[in-house]
Amino acid sequence: MAEKNIPFNKEQIEKIIEKFPTPFHIYDEKAIVDNARRFKKAFEWAPGFKNFYAVKALPNPSILKLLHDEGFGADCSSMAELHICDMVNVSGEDIMFTSNETPEEEYQKAMDQKAVINLDDITHIDFLEKCAGLPEVICFRYNPGPLKGGNDIIGNPEDAKYGLTREQMLEAYQIMKDKGVKRFGMHTMVASNELNVDYFVETAVILFEMAAEIAEQVGIDLEFINLGGGIGIPYKPEQDEVNLEELGEKIEKKYNEILGSKNLKPAIFFECGRMITGPYGYLVTRAIHSKSIYKEYIAVDGCMANLMRPGMYGAYHHVTVVGKENATADCTYDVVGSLCENCDKFAVDRQLPKIDKGDVVVMHDTGAHGHSMGFNYNGKLRSAELMLKEDKTAVMIRREETYDDLFATLKF
Amino acid sequence: MAEKNIPFNKEQIEKIIEKFPTPFHIYDEKAIVDNARRFKKAFEWAPGFKNFYAVKALPNPSILKLLHDEGFGADCSSMAELHICDMVNVSGEDIMFTSNETPEEEYQKAMDQKAVINLDDITHIDFLEKCAGLPEVICFRYNPGPLKGGNDIIGNPEDAKYGLTREQMLEAYQIMKDKGVKRFGMHTMVASNELNVDYFVETAVILFEMAAEIAEQVGIDLEFINLGGGIGIPYKPEQDEVNLEELGEKIEKKYNEILGSKNLKPAIFFECGRMITGPYGYLVTRAIHSKSIYKEYIAVDGCMANLMRPGMYGAYHHVTVVGKENATADCTYDVVGSLCENCDKFAVDRQLPKIDKGDVVVMHDTGAHGHSMGFNYNGKLRSAELMLKEDKTAVMIRREETYDDLFATLKF
Repeated sequence: MAEKNIPFNKEQIEKIIEKFPTPFHIYDEKAIVDNARRFKKAFEWAPGFKNFYAVKALPNPSILKLLHDEGFGADCSSMAELHICDMVNVSGEDIMFTSNETPEEEYQKAMDQKAVINLDDITHIDFLEKCAGLPEVICFRYNPGPLKGGNDIIGNPEDAKYGLTREQMLEAYQIMKDKGVKRFGMHTMVASNELNVDYFVETAVILFEMAAEIAEQVGIDLEFINLGGGIGIPYKPEQDEVNLEELGEKIEKKYNEILGSKNLKPAIFFECGRMITGPYGYLVTRAIHSKSIYKEYIAVDGCMANLMRPGMYGAYHHVTVVGKENATADCTYDVVGSLCENCDKFAVDRQLPKIDKGDVVVMHDTGAHGHSMGFNYNGKLRSAELMLKEDKTAVMIRREETYDDLFATLKF
Repeated sequence: MAEKNIPFNKEQIEKIIEKFPTPFHIYDEKAIVDNARRFKKAFEWAPGFKNFYAVKALPNPSILKLLHDEGFGADCSSMAELHICDMVNVSGEDIMFTSNETPEEEYQKAMDQKAVINLDDITHIDFLEKCAGLPEVICFRYNPGPLKGGNDIIGNPEDAKYGLTREQMLEAYQIMKDKGVKRFGMHTMVASNELNVDYFVETAVILFEMAAEIAEQVGIDLEFINLGGGIGIPYKPEQDEVNLEELGEKIEKKYNEILGSKNLKPAIFFECGRMITGPYGYLVTRAIHSKSIYKEYIAVDGCMANLMRPGMYGAYHHVTVVGKENATADCTYDVVGSLCENCDKFAVDRQLPKIDKGDVVVMHDTGAHGHSMGFNYNGKLRSAELMLKEDKTAVMIRREETYDDLFATLKF
C-alpha cells in the first residue's frame, strides 16, 4: 500500500495560490532530496554508484541542480537536454548522452561538453568519429532482444528501436579497442514504470554476464555498467513502491557472484527519472464547474495539456480534494478539463468526497512525465511549475505560458 | 480505394527544402480550396449551409483565412482559437463557440466577438447570463446519450462529458425563450474520423426529430442545426473517402421528410476540420540513418513531436519515398524518429522501397491533428508549416520552434 498524502494543508496551498494562480505543478523539494539520498544509500556498496537523472522526466534546470547537488548526474537524450545541463553547470562525465538516431550536431555538442557518449548503433562508431572524433570513454547500449521479456510499458526489447544486438556489442567493443579507446562502459534500458524488483535483478544479471563475456573475449574491463532506469512508482494506493534496499542487496549479490569472482569491479550507474521526482510532484487545480448528465462531472481549471498520462494512456493518477482528505468518498465523478477532447479526463468513475466549486483538487505523482509531456492542443497553455520549500512557501521555477508564447511562431 | 499521391515531385520538393529545411508540414492550398468547394456544392440544397472549420485541427490563421474566403466559418472551443479569429477578421456569426467547462473570460471574449455561443450544460445558462449577459442567438449542444451508438474514436455519447440530455434540452430552450431570447440553434458532435455515410444520416435524423419536438413543445423554430463534424478521411489506401454527394442527398431526403413536412427550414451547419484539410497536409522529412538489429529501421529527421497520431494511437499514416513512388516495396521497415520513446515510430513493419540516407520521406494526411497535437517531450522542437502554392513554390506560415522558444518560460 502506498500512502497518498499531500505535503500541504488547505491554508498553506491557498496562500501559495494567492501568489501563483492555479493550475500549476508543485514539487516537494525536501522529499525529492530525501528520496535521492535513500537511493544512493541503497547502493552505497557499489563502487562509483551514480544515478544519472533522466532529464526528460522533468526537464527543469532547478530540479537538475537540486539533484546534481546530491551527486546525481544527468541522463540526456537530446540537444535541449544538453543545453539544460549548461544552464546549471553540469558537464563532463556527469552527463551521459544516450540518444538514438542522433544528428551530427548533437554528438558535437555532447563531445564539447565531454559527456559520456552512449552509442545506440554500431554504425554510429564511424558516424561519431567522422562528425566529432572519438571520445576518451565510450559506452554502448545493449538491446538483449529475446533474452529479456520486456514489460507492458516499454514493450519487448526485440521490437524496440534501441541498442545493439549481442553480436554487435562484442564487435563494437573490439572496433573501439582497435581504434585506441581506453575506457568503456555498457548500458541498457529495458523497462518503464516497472514495480517488480526481480525484473531489475534479472536485467543486472544479463549485463553482468555480458560484461564478463566482454572481458573474456575482447579483453576489456568495463569501467561502468549503467543498468538503465524504469523503476516504477505506485500510482495507485494499492500498489507498493519498489523496495530500494532489497533491490540494492539483490543486485549486490549478483555483482559479487558474477563480477567479483572474476575480479571485475565496474561502477554501477542508473538513469532513473520517474522514481526520483514522480511521487513528489502535484498538479494543483481548482474545481470550476459541476455537471450532471448521464454521469456526474467535476471540471477543474487544468486540463490534459498539464498532464497527458490519463488522457493518453488511461493512466491512473490519485486525486485528493484539499481539506476533504478524511471525508467519506461517497460520490462517483469523472474529473475533467475543458479541452475539446473527450479523453480530457483526469479520473473516470472515481470515488471522491463531494466536490464543491472552488475546492482545490490535486492530482498526485506529476513530478515526472507530467509537465514535460504537455501539448498545446486546442490552444491550451501549459502551466507554471513551482518548488515547494520546507517552510511551505513556493518559488516559481517555470512561469505559465501566455498566448504570446503560443502564437510566437506564427507567420501572418 | 484512396489514392495516396503527393502534390510535388523530387525536384520541386528539393527546391523547397533548399529554402526551408526539413522537417516541415506542407499544406496544398489549391487542394484545400477545391475540397471546401466540393463540400459546399454537396449541400447547396440546404438553406444557409455553412461549415465552421474546426480550428483545433489546424490552428493556423493562414488556413482559417483561406477557408473563410471560401465562405467557411470558424468552430472555436478555446480562448486561443477565438484569438486566431481576430487575427484574420473572422467575427460575429462566422464563429461558433463550442466549449465545455468554460471559464468566464472565454464567454466574455466570445460575446465581445458576437460569436454564436453553443452552451454545453444547462447550468451554463445562469453562468453565461451572470458573467457576460445573454446573447441574441443561443445554441445548445445535444448529447443524445443512449439514442446514439457512438464510434470507436469518440466513444459512446453516454460516456462523453459533452452536451445536454434530451430532457435538459427541452427545459433549456424553454428557459431561454422565457428570458426573451429570440433566435436559436442546436448542435451535436457524436463522431470522430467516421467513414460511414449512414452514421451521419442517423445523427441528422436524431437532430431533425429533436428540432421538430422543440418546435412542437417549446414553440421555437430553430434557425440552424449544426450536425457537428467527425467526417473521417481514408488514412489507409484500402479505405474509401466519404462520398459527400451521397451524404448531401441522403441528409436532404431526411430534412424534407422530417422538417419540410412541418414547414421547418433551419439552416444546416457542419463543423468539419479533419476532412477539410487533413488529406492535403504532408510531413516532409529526410532519412538520416538506417539501423539493422532485430528489425530494420529507417530514422528520419522528424519525430512524434511533429506528428503524434502514430505514436499516441498507433494510427496509420501512409508513407511515400519521394522519387521512389513506383519502385517495388520490397523492404520492411519501422520508420522512426529520434525521440527517446519507443513509440516514436511513424510506421511499423511497413512495406516500402529501399530507403537510402538522404531520401525525402513523406508522411501523408497531416493536415489535421498533425502539427496542432505536437508536444515538446524530450526537448523536441515543433516544426515549421508551409503553404504549397499552385506553382509548387512554398510560403512559410509558421516558423519552426527554437531552443529560445522552448526555454522561454524557465525561471532560472
